[in-house]
Amino acid sequence: MRKVAESTIRRLSLYLRLLEEFEGQGIATVSSGALAGRGGTTSAQVRKDLSFFGSFGKRGLGYPVLELVAHLRGILGLDRRYRVAMIGAGKIGSALVQYRGFRQRGFDVAAIFDVDPAKIGKAWNGLTVQDIAALEEVVKAEKVDMAVVATPPDVAQPIADRLVALGIKAILNFAPVQITVPDDVVVKTVNLALELETLSYALTNR
Amino acid sequence: MRKVAESTIRRLSLYLRLLEEFEGQGIATVSSGALAGRGGTTSAQVRKDLSFFGSFGKRGLGYPVLELVAHLRGILGLDRRYRVAMIGAGKIGSALVQYRGFRQRGFDVAAIFDVDPAKIGKAWNGLTVQDIAALEEVVKAEKVDMAVVATPPDVAQPIADRLVALGIKAILNFAPVQITVPDDVVVKTVNLALELETLSYALTNR
Repeated sequence: MRKVAESTIRRLSLYLRLLEEFEGQGIATVSSGALAGRGGTTSAQVRKDLSFFGSFGKRGLGYPVLELVAHLRGILGLDRRYRVAMIGAGKIGSALVQYRGFRQRGFDVAAIFDVDPAKIGKAWNGLTVQDIAALEEVVKAEKVDMAVVATPPDVAQPIADRLVALGIKAILNFAPVQITVPDDVVVKTVNLALELETLSYALTNR
Repeated sequence: MRKVAESTIRRLSLYLRLLEEFEGQGIATVSSGALAGRGGTTSAQVRKDLSFFGSFGKRGLGYPVLELVAHLRGILGLDRRYRVAMIGAGKIGSALVQYRGFRQRGFDVAAIFDVDPAKIGKAWNGLTVQDIAALEEVVKAEKVDMAVVATPPDVAQPIADRLVALGIKAILNFAPVQITVPDDVVVKTVNLALELETLSYALTNR
């Protein structure tokens, strides 16, 4: 597999969103120009991005919407389901489980962990909160693919180290710290505190 | 005001988080090396970042934690409060209002808007949901500084245009689309769908 730039994946993700809209409107074919116009890019870029993953569409006829949706879902890995371990039974985890896009994209929470004795053993969005001490055992038993780290900042790295040792290759990190992992593991950090501070900085220094 | 790179703001934000930890531990002074080690950067970079905003600390004595926390909070605009308009009375808005860091960083929700007649007029986290048709009137009356856009993707841009016309200079966007604004407006987009698709792509193509 050739290495694909994250900016390309971002655009594919955007094309998919636009195509799903077209699909909802019953549109059968779209031109690269229509995708480019809505996606803030050029026709040439759209054709280049899509040709990279194989040959779609016919010259002059545009892209068949349904077929391209299926192809893009396959490329982005959205045609299968993933088993997710949620680390931290707090508000972020709850919001994520209730977020429609999470299940829509094939992510199912298979286990939830916390360190707080008051939470362990309690029901949580259809699961039972497990002791973080049992992480290794449960992640193996539940065949977990991916983890969401929604812990306080000081424990995020040790938790990530344990996940990496378990062979987890994808982590979504909500703790407000940078996590360091080996090259074959992907971490995406959603740092809301940082986004807010960038905005307050902009409001103060404008 | 000199233009400051977003990467610098990110590091200042990180230093502040580390310093608040030191403060919590009762530590009075820290070296640039201690900040660098925890922040994944170099002592020289820490000194450069901090000197850019004025002279802190004494050679050989390190930085006074309390004073530096106060300075950084001032630089990042965290020493005042902001009035926020929340557009979309859904789960994202609720999670954000309940997120401790939102109030901690000085963001107070002053108004909440929706387009759904079933939601308009109902109580929502201590506020009453208002008709989006009244956006202009309410934003002016409530002296709103910033907006959170948590709408479906197709209306995010028209809403942003109305906010810009009202003089709003900072937008936190949760709609899964890019929003285009003039140069003097800052938009930060938190696109969870995109983060998830980057992870599923990585899991599928590893």
